[in-house]
Amino acid sequence: MPGEFELIARYFTRPARQAVMGVGDDCALLQTAPGMQLAVSTDMLVAGRHFFSDVDPYLLGHKSLAVNLSDLAACGARPLAFSLALALPNAEDAWLEPFSRGLLALADAHNCELIGGDTTRGPLTICITVFGEVPADTAARPVPTRALLRSGAQAGDDVYVSGSVGDAALALLALQGRITLPADMMQAARTRLEQPTPRVALGLALRGIASACADVSDGLLGDLGHILARSHCGARVELDKVLPLLAARQAYAGGAAQFDNAYGARIALQCVLAGGDDYELVFTAPAAQRSALAALAGSLQLPLTRIATIEAAPGLRLVDAQGYAMAHDFASFDHFPAAGGLL
Amino acid sequence: MPGEFELIARYFTRPARQAVMGVGDDCALLQTAPGMQLAVSTDMLVAGRHFFSDVDPYLLGHKSLAVNLSDLAACGARPLAFSLALALPNAEDAWLEPFSRGLLALADAHNCELIGGDTTRGPLTICITVFGEVPADTAARPVPTRALLRSGAQAGDDVYVSGSVGDAALALLALQGRITLPADMMQAARTRLEQPTPRVALGLALRGIASACADVSDGLLGDLGHILARSHCGARVELDKVLPLLAARQAYAGGAAQFDNAYGARIALQCVLAGGDDYELVFTAPAAQRSALAALAGSLQLPLTRIATIEAAPGLRLVDAQGYAMAHDFASFDHFPAAGGLL
Repeated sequence: MPGEFELIARYFTRPARQAVMGVGDDCALLQTAPGMQLAVSTDMLVAGRHFFSDVDPYLLGHKSLAVNLSDLAACGARPLAFSLALALPNAEDAWLEPFSRGLLALADAHNCELIGGDTTRGPLTICITVFGEVPADTAARPVPTRALLRSGAQAGDDVYVSGSVGDAALALLALQGRITLPADMMQAARTRLEQPTPRVALGLALRGIASACADVSDGLLGDLGHILARSHCGARVELDKVLPLLAARQAYAGGAAQFDNAYGARIALQCVLAGGDDYELVFTAPAAQRSALAALAGSLQLPLTRIATIEAAPGLRLVDAQGYAMAHDFASFDHFPAAGGLL
Repeated sequence: MPGEFELIARYFTRPARQAVMGVGDDCALLQTAPGMQLAVSTDMLVAGRHFFSDVDPYLLGHKSLAVNLSDLAACGARPLAFSLALALPNAEDAWLEPFSRGLLALADAHNCELIGGDTTRGPLTICITVFGEVPADTAARPVPTRALLRSGAQAGDDVYVSGSVGDAALALLALQGRITLPADMMQAARTRLEQPTPRVALGLALRGIASACADVSDGLLGDLGHILARSHCGARVELDKVLPLLAARQAYAGGAAQFDNAYGARIALQCVLAGGDDYELVFTAPAAQRSALAALAGSLQLPLTRIATIEAAPGLRLVDAQGYAMAHDFASFDHFPAAGGLL
């Protein structure tokens, strides 16, 4: 079994490219270009909580960085670097080799370099802190930045979601044995859960277009709720715009699974509105940006679906196709829920 | 029990001071002053591995940040901010209140603000990434920085250690029930283990004086070994200069404990040479800096003990008072040792 320092050297040490200094000293050194700010985000993934202990290590390496890159995307920041802290029950090449390969493949795809971290023995836990670059804007109020914030939504703005949402939660339910999905639907949903795509290019393109942005990690309504809370406003969400966001929905609600339709419809609704782990972006933009956003969806080949309108009155109002209000209790995912759980 | 977001708000959210934006969005935003670089370091602490699960949460909060500030100190960086990722078996006010108080008291003492992080349910694990500021130096080679690095030691340089080392390891052995210490000695050693003092002011003062620096986290010889490896040189360590660094040694070796002297002497030697968790600084400096370092020790009221000389030939040579070489096998602490352990 390799020692800690040998392990770091073998799997995680590479020459610094953008960083002033990378792995190997007490600290790494980063220098941002003049006029740029550093965007920083941290996510911790715990075995049995965020992933199954026996998940493919390559996919886990990918996802560990993806969830962090998604936070940079939500801020419109360009990825620069990341640090990795890893607690492992034991240091096995058979696990470390594919884990580091999945991690570094995604890192390379985003030109995001590993600059440091920590390894220790312990229950399998992965903690990544990611660094991105975003232009300062001394004229911007109240925060002097060009970063996308959660706090800029205005009454009248449209609310959009990128890609599809809810399928990751659907795959999780299936892996937990709580529902059954046809094989091809399961494979597609499982890829959404285990190998999410951080919307980095979209986040960068939304600077100057979106008025507020967050990533969908805790659930669509919950993450939209974060925008509403920070922007001191409310939203009217159209259910018939939201339901098609679940890629697997049509086949599932149509009876492809072993549940009756009422239960199936409830599952679909729960997954799309409150399922976490999708890592799409939910964002707001003035109506004047509709054509710019249509063009962007085309150039990125990524659906950007308008699902809601920002209103001055606080609160999240869910309405059906006829505009009637629907009662809902779709809380977002909370690791320490005061009551209840996902289902 | 509070929910995750309520928990973050109650214990860990404070208004940003130095940061452009702190807790509450997808990313925090940091902006360094022109000509400054960001020093970054990450440490992960796992219950049962780095601390006992029943340790006083106030002291654990202190130590979690202290070990990270120690890395900034080793680089001569001024603390700016940190992010905190926390996995908890459950969210209990009785634990979170004192933990956050101990953490933030040390943070405030160093003007280092909490800018973000993550909380999740899981085996008790604390991962902190700390950010500091250090001047760039475009004329410096090979790394354009004024940060203290491990790589600058030169043949002929003196090697110093700050404060006392080995007492933290001694306390650990006692807490594990492997040795017994008199109560007053135990209390002093235990404070060294549970409430270490990061040498931030020393690190800042050593810029321009020290040629290389590291903090003593894995063990004195091991951490000096990191300097030697990065500086491509060796050292001649004088044992009679090193042994007095163990504050508890005299009383212990004199028979205060229940072991015979030969075993006691071996314990003392092991703790001082290879015991981790002291968070002092080990550094090198040209002989021309001796008077500057004596003055610095006086002004900081912190002993700076000269223990070794850097030599061109690689390797770590331990010599007795008569200059005779001693065989040694004092490896530094390795979380994944290829063979053997601390004792």
